[in-house]
Amino acid sequence: MTPALIQFFGFAAAFCTTAAYLPQVIRVWRTRQTKDISLAMFLVMTVGLLCWLVYGFSIHDLPIILCNGSALVMTSIILIFKLRHG
Amino acid sequence: MTPALIQFFGFAAAFCTTAAYLPQVIRVWRTRQTKDISLAMFLVMTVGLLCWLVYGFSIHDLPIILCNGSALVMTSIILIFKLRHG
Repeated sequence: MTPALIQFFGFAAAFCTTAAYLPQVIRVWRTRQTKDISLAMFLVMTVGLLCWLVYGFSIHDLPIILCNGSALVMTSIILIFKLRHG
Repeated sequence: MTPALIQFFGFAAAFCTTAAYLPQVIRVWRTRQTKDISLAMFLVMTVGLLCWLVYGFSIHDLPIILCNGSALVMTSIILIFKLRHG
């Protein structure tokens, strides 16, 4: 695989695994329904993303900070909806 | 921050953002209820994790392969339940 293609997969991976939370944010925002969503999943994910953010700042890595920071905002919103609507 | 503490945050981050999917897998397996889960989220996430796996194999990075490979298995299970149970 060429370096350019490897880089493409890296960028696509980072983009998808960050952007993926957006449709779930929109869904809970619109429906206010969170019954089938696992509280533990979004709790552990939010803690994990917070750790990535601390790690990213510690090693001064901008892609880690930006991707995990954006994802953290979105999982926090989903978590708040889950805590409110059960 | 000491290098050991930075490494701790990196490991905690990788562990949490991988393990987080497990409670959601258990939940959909038990309840068969997936209405509130966003299909788009788990579709995009699965594609993203697949890209991370390709990327990990391309650069021969075992942590990337193991974390994203495990997460991929779990998001695929959630996705299959979502496609079956709507």
